[in-house]
Amino acid sequence: MTKHIIDAAQVEQHNAKLKAELQADYDALGGMLSRRGVDIEALTAKAQTFGVAVPSWGAGTGGTRFARFPGKGEPRDVTEKLEDCAVIHQLTRATPAVSLHFPWDKPADPKALRQQADELGLGFDAVNSNTFQDQAGQPATYKFGSLTSTNKASRELAVQHNIDCIELGKTLGSKGLTVWVGDGANFPGQSNLRGALERYIDSARGIYAALPDDWQMYIEHKLFEPAFYCSVIADWGTSFAVAQTLGPKAKCLVDLGHHAPNTNIEMIVARLAQFGKLGGFHFNDSKYGDDDLDSGSIDPFQLFLIFNELADSQARDGAGFNPSYMLDQSHNVTDPIESLMSSAVEVQRAFVQASMVDRVALAGFQESNDVLQAAQTLKKAFRTDVSPILAMARLRSGGAIDPVAAYRAAGYREQVAVKRPPKAGASGSGIV
Amino acid sequence: MTKHIIDAAQVEQHNAKLKAELQADYDALGGMLSRRGVDIEALTAKAQTFGVAVPSWGAGTGGTRFARFPGKGEPRDVTEKLEDCAVIHQLTRATPAVSLHFPWDKPADPKALRQQADELGLGFDAVNSNTFQDQAGQPATYKFGSLTSTNKASRELAVQHNIDCIELGKTLGSKGLTVWVGDGANFPGQSNLRGALERYIDSARGIYAALPDDWQMYIEHKLFEPAFYCSVIADWGTSFAVAQTLGPKAKCLVDLGHHAPNTNIEMIVARLAQFGKLGGFHFNDSKYGDDDLDSGSIDPFQLFLIFNELADSQARDGAGFNPSYMLDQSHNVTDPIESLMSSAVEVQRAFVQASMVDRVALAGFQESNDVLQAAQTLKKAFRTDVSPILAMARLRSGGAIDPVAAYRAAGYREQVAVKRPPKAGASGSGIV
Amino acid sequence: MTKHIIDAAQVEQHNAKLKAELQADYDALGGMLSRRGVDIEALTAKAQTFGVAVPSWGAGTGGTRFARFPGKGEPRDVTEKLEDCAVIHQLTRATPAVSLHFPWDKPADPKALRQQADELGLGFDAVNSNTFQDQAGQPATYKFGSLTSTNKASRELAVQHNIDCIELGKTLGSKGLTVWVGDGANFPGQSNLRGALERYIDSARGIYAALPDDWQMYIEHKLFEPAFYCSVIADWGTSFAVAQTLGPKAKCLVDLGHHAPNTNIEMIVARLAQFGKLGGFHFNDSKYGDDDLDSGSIDPFQLFLIFNELADSQARDGAGFNPSYMLDQSHNVTDPIESLMSSAVEVQRAFVQASMVDRVALAGFQESNDVLQAAQTLKKAFRTDVSPILAMARLRSGGAIDPVAAYRAAGYREQVAVKRPPKAGASGSGIV
Amino acid sequence: MTKHIIDAAQVEQHNAKLKAELQADYDALGGMLSRRGVDIEALTAKAQTFGVAVPSWGAGTGGTRFARFPGKGEPRDVTEKLEDCAVIHQLTRATPAVSLHFPWDKPADPKALRQQADELGLGFDAVNSNTFQDQAGQPATYKFGSLTSTNKASRELAVQHNIDCIELGKTLGSKGLTVWVGDGANFPGQSNLRGALERYIDSARGIYAALPDDWQMYIEHKLFEPAFYCSVIADWGTSFAVAQTLGPKAKCLVDLGHHAPNTNIEMIVARLAQFGKLGGFHFNDSKYGDDDLDSGSIDPFQLFLIFNELADSQARDGAGFNPSYMLDQSHNVTDPIESLMSSAVEVQRAFVQASMVDRVALAGFQESNDVLQAAQTLKKAFRTDVSPILAMARLRSGGAIDPVAAYRAAGYREQVAVKRPPKAGASGSGIV
Repeated sequence: MTKHIIDAAQVEQHNAKLKAELQADYDALGGMLSRRGVDIEALTAKAQTFGVAVPSWGAGTGGTRFARFPGKGEPRDVTEKLEDCAVIHQLTRATPAVSLHFPWDKPADPKALRQQADELGLGFDAVNSNTFQDQAGQPATYKFGSLTSTNKASRELAVQHNIDCIELGKTLGSKGLTVWVGDGANFPGQSNLRGALERYIDSARGIYAALPDDWQMYIEHKLFEPAFYCSVIADWGTSFAVAQTLGPKAKCLVDLGHHAPNTNIEMIVARLAQFGKLGGFHFNDSKYGDDDLDSGSIDPFQLFLIFNELADSQARDGAGFNPSYMLDQSHNVTDPIESLMSSAVEVQRAFVQASMVDRVALAGFQESNDVLQAAQTLKKAFRTDVSPILAMARLRSGGAIDPVAAYRAAGYREQVAVKRPPKAGASGSGIV
Repeated sequence: MTKHIIDAAQVEQHNAKLKAELQADYDALGGMLSRRGVDIEALTAKAQTFGVAVPSWGAGTGGTRFARFPGKGEPRDVTEKLEDCAVIHQLTRATPAVSLHFPWDKPADPKALRQQADELGLGFDAVNSNTFQDQAGQPATYKFGSLTSTNKASRELAVQHNIDCIELGKTLGSKGLTVWVGDGANFPGQSNLRGALERYIDSARGIYAALPDDWQMYIEHKLFEPAFYCSVIADWGTSFAVAQTLGPKAKCLVDLGHHAPNTNIEMIVARLAQFGKLGGFHFNDSKYGDDDLDSGSIDPFQLFLIFNELADSQARDGAGFNPSYMLDQSHNVTDPIESLMSSAVEVQRAFVQASMVDRVALAGFQESNDVLQAAQTLKKAFRTDVSPILAMARLRSGGAIDPVAAYRAAGYREQVAVKRPPKAGASGSGIV
Repeated sequence: MTKHIIDAAQVEQHNAKLKAELQADYDALGGMLSRRGVDIEALTAKAQTFGVAVPSWGAGTGGTRFARFPGKGEPRDVTEKLEDCAVIHQLTRATPAVSLHFPWDKPADPKALRQQADELGLGFDAVNSNTFQDQAGQPATYKFGSLTSTNKASRELAVQHNIDCIELGKTLGSKGLTVWVGDGANFPGQSNLRGALERYIDSARGIYAALPDDWQMYIEHKLFEPAFYCSVIADWGTSFAVAQTLGPKAKCLVDLGHHAPNTNIEMIVARLAQFGKLGGFHFNDSKYGDDDLDSGSIDPFQLFLIFNELADSQARDGAGFNPSYMLDQSHNVTDPIESLMSSAVEVQRAFVQASMVDRVALAGFQESNDVLQAAQTLKKAFRTDVSPILAMARLRSGGAIDPVAAYRAAGYREQVAVKRPPKAGASGSGIV
Repeated sequence: MTKHIIDAAQVEQHNAKLKAELQADYDALGGMLSRRGVDIEALTAKAQTFGVAVPSWGAGTGGTRFARFPGKGEPRDVTEKLEDCAVIHQLTRATPAVSLHFPWDKPADPKALRQQADELGLGFDAVNSNTFQDQAGQPATYKFGSLTSTNKASRELAVQHNIDCIELGKTLGSKGLTVWVGDGANFPGQSNLRGALERYIDSARGIYAALPDDWQMYIEHKLFEPAFYCSVIADWGTSFAVAQTLGPKAKCLVDLGHHAPNTNIEMIVARLAQFGKLGGFHFNDSKYGDDDLDSGSIDPFQLFLIFNELADSQARDGAGFNPSYMLDQSHNVTDPIESLMSSAVEVQRAFVQASMVDRVALAGFQESNDVLQAAQTLKKAFRTDVSPILAMARLRSGGAIDPVAAYRAAGYREQVAVKRPPKAGASGSGIV
């Protein structure tokens, strides 16, 4: 029996108030869809199948190099982070797994952590290694690189840390390791560009060798930051070439904020899918760089177009096509729980809208180069306000009709603000 | 009595088939809105007030420097362009004016053109000058600039052409002149940056002096193309400084594709409105540069956010706030009439959605820094599928429920393809 | 015996006037370099080995979609283009080969063209196919794609045209085919992203099969233009995946203007070199998009950094590393011959500067993470004004000390302006 | 008598070793320049006039939101920062002033700080306020904005802090206040765009009123970060409009890293100069965003082009044209003293190269549209390796021929590493 962080009666009470209105909206939408030949019930059932993992670090307030403005009741350890993640899943029913980040989330007792997760109805998605920071007392620095450092000791330390992450992940029930490194250079000449990638591949082979057969290694590329002249794994081309070099368990992870301006991300999705190397996603949104804003908050149509490609590949490749979904956001000015809940819903929205696209009609318009109608076919699905479907899916799965309202009504943040007093010195002294 | 290019009976027949379904959708949406406290009838009435001008040159097939692939039945002169524009307005009821471009559209008999427009129920929006091309036999070249050329004869020619445009516009009933120049430089050193703007201002004063009191001069900036190192009027800052220098009749025109990557265009709109210099828009969409794609086709949320600023300024400034709206697109792979119709509808959609924003709630969330709910307040309006409202507005105003379907059913393109055979040599030999 | 277009005596006279000053500068620079332990004579000898191909189409004046402003004495056919290319090579001694573009340059008599080239001391570099324009009377259109069209007839036509180009190239002595297609889409939905690349690969296999064993097929990617939503071969990742799929004769071509903003191009060069797929370059420069400006005119340091990667790969891979170099520029406001001469010199400058980098010292600084000195090691080479070396190399190879001055003194442009009157109707009516 | 941090004898010894070689290089360059009609002595004298301020915060190691990797011997307070700045000026003779940042550098005894600076031969440039971080115990937060906050208490606090900075600056002998705020929004809807700027202007008036008559207020714009959807002062247009609104003491500050991709920064410089609002610079370099890399390290030609505009405006406007120069960099992987020294030299290099441009010839080529020669005129100056001039200027002004070598030889960093042990807990725990 899943343990509920928020009293189930409170959620029920919330739903009771909104149910009639939801039903009316749902019926109205159902009528509109049925006039278009679409069965609302099939969509709702589809929506209920959706899940996206929540990043444990997302439960805390984020910041920039300039400052961090702490929020109230931030979780102080992985146990408290799990509690917050449980709230998110309880209310949205769309975030059944948590993605941990080591050493930040390193549990004193991994088995106990797994048990806590079980009780809360949560699983563990891919684990994430961290070789972009030095930990206190670390024997070799990552200042000039980790997996690609010219210093052998730094490389070995980074490889071993990744292997340790795999070990921890095995205990927790994870099936994937996400590897993102900040390695690169700030100045032309600082690094030998080929040499750095050779060292990366060499180090990555060491990690790959430790990977269980049923695991995947997700290689995450990023154009820039923290390296400002070049990053070793800067683009999907490099990520792809490396994944090919390593072997079938190595796949590419697409973070929506890690691309050059104007990049067509949905095409990268299509390319990686076509060549069998699409591993998964870090969902977020951005206007400038790796802004890590709430998913769908800046360009919701782009999110839809990405899911349109996923739906197309699903139709082509069937059950074997199974990329992993994770949110990866930095919540600087919102309540992290609220942002994660509404972001999960936004990603789910794009998933449902993409599943509404009339693919037969679309293929016909594409074949005959009826460009306008092909474009309108996508727009028609995107324009449809599927909010009642998402709410009904939540209701039927035991969640809240309006997760943010239910969360606020439950007073969770105020409660943890009392239980979790701010750490001394945690106030925002950013790096400049 | 307006003369209809497409037989009104055909449009009626089209509407008759779709009317019942539209009414059902409209009622369903009306119910949903009413549960949110929104009156659908007020929105429909609002939608009926909307108008955006159509560019005469948009009626032909566009191209790139690489090639142009002509379409069937392209209009061969301004008279035929007006006919196509009339079709667009007949079916959408959202494009009551046409924007002409000289010398491309220079009429043999301006008064006859005005009469044709009157009969078709069309007016004339701002006229556009062209000093980015040399005309056959032109006494001085624009190769190295027009209003900013170091050659006095070129500058004078360009000034005089603009004055001629004003004269023509007066006869046609226009009230504005849009000035866009391609002037700039391809190489560092080619042009003295301050000198070029000094000459621009000097030339612009000559044009401004010829402007009637009830006219506006729209200064259109553009980051690049055709100049590839620098453009004289490259950004809104320059446009704004020039408009201030010239006087109250000079305003700034915002083309959605004329900005640097990642630019927040809605903020430029807000800034120009705040400082009293927002003249109007060239609507289109783009992913890379000045792609001139159909409005709302790439980033519909951005279009909504622009209209959200317009609604905010309308509420602040009242009737005095009256920017001019025009489409400016290049239709390379679609039927221009279809693209212009659906683009007019897209802009109208953003207009209606922005008018749905609950501004009192929004202001409250902004005041209390409830960031998530502020963001959701905009999203709620954007997500609403107002298609039934737009269709009902068209129906009530005498247009077509589904303009593209009605247009196709009427067989207009096939008819003009016969009447307007392709010009010899007009096939696509692009510039490389 | 090479036939000289410009009277050799004129060049000699030009050189005679500048020789003493050049010698003094050369000696002064030689002294400075020798104090740094660098032998100027080795650099001059190295400079003399450099060659970059000239694009035949570059000999004419370019334009934009807005306008083309013709220059005087533009070549009217491939024979005249060859003459202009011969002038460029005569004066710079750095452009021994010409790259042709079909059907633009399709010779009536290929053997005669080859003989003309032989007489002028020119060879033929890669030939270029053109499936981005429709030719008069073409049986199937490329409006909606060529190698990737959904229309089989269009695809077959495009494949056959490429095979024809190979055939022509064989006669002319070329050893490579450059394939650039404008295929893509202007709107989301217009094209099935995976389907389009599947068709591309299928078509490309047909071309690859016709490729002689000692030829290379250069796949050229481009982010956008003429397609404005997505391009089928948009980035190096796609180009690389396709080249891998096709086989060892398929390589990737890097055009410096075909990338997203902020892209680190030298890293792409390093990646392609590392994975054995760097085919060659289209050199030019740009500030915004595919601006096709003169090489090194906007960001000369970037050009140097690219050659720094080439020098690194040369040192690693030896003689087997042999990418092909070509200029690809659009000369809208300069004399094309002057631009091509000075661009060839700019590329040669970067080549010589990169060969001056102290690679042993650099490797040491990289190994020890002496970031500042590593960066300064590159900067030191870049800062060195090698102009006297380049001029001396030209002088010793029989060219002109100052190619542009010699060209102007020879009055070549004025002479061809008489011989080559402008074509009627060729004046600039751009596409809008 | 200036107190030298590094023993003057050590510098002399360093110079003695390099003097002969420098003289030989200087003479060789002098000969080359004299053959071009340029007097090297005039350039050296010009170089000696150059100065750029050093930011106190630049003396410490910077970081990113991901991590900070501390360096050895980082200054622990403003006194130690001044010592480091003194070393930079002692060796380069190009950084006579320091720019302080409050509250980071708030001195216990301002008069004592001024005396220390006097003894070290340093002055104080503009002071910088900080309202982008909360200080411990602060009565109102800047989490949702400072000068633009909807919370009156936050706005008043921010205004008062700026007034306090002015007061401190008066005591220290500053003549300017730089105001940069991170205010903006992360999400559409979070902030009313016009309202935020209205509040900014209102707050700024309060600061402006406290400004002494001989002071300037530098308004610094920035496209994004820490705000990721919109920044209140995002571009030069907004900065300019605000400066105009405030009055003649308000000017615009240009940071080279605060612009949209592809922006032509030298044109912004020209525009602000033309309209009398160019206040000064924060020099650095970048490839992606506000990367804060060493000046001239990524795009040295851009730095030159900016100084070319400054030289042009100097020639036009004379002594009244006097923008302020400051470095603003983040040194994440280099010794900050080394980076600041070589960056000061890079900026000085651009200054000297720009002063070499033959402005009469350039104006002639511009007038006659000899585009190629105009471009080459700039390139000729940029290509000239003026390193011997810069070294001779330093030598003559009492600095070091090779500042970095002299600094390393003096063992300064090792000495302060002993004197300044790392703060506990200062190790790099970045914000994520």
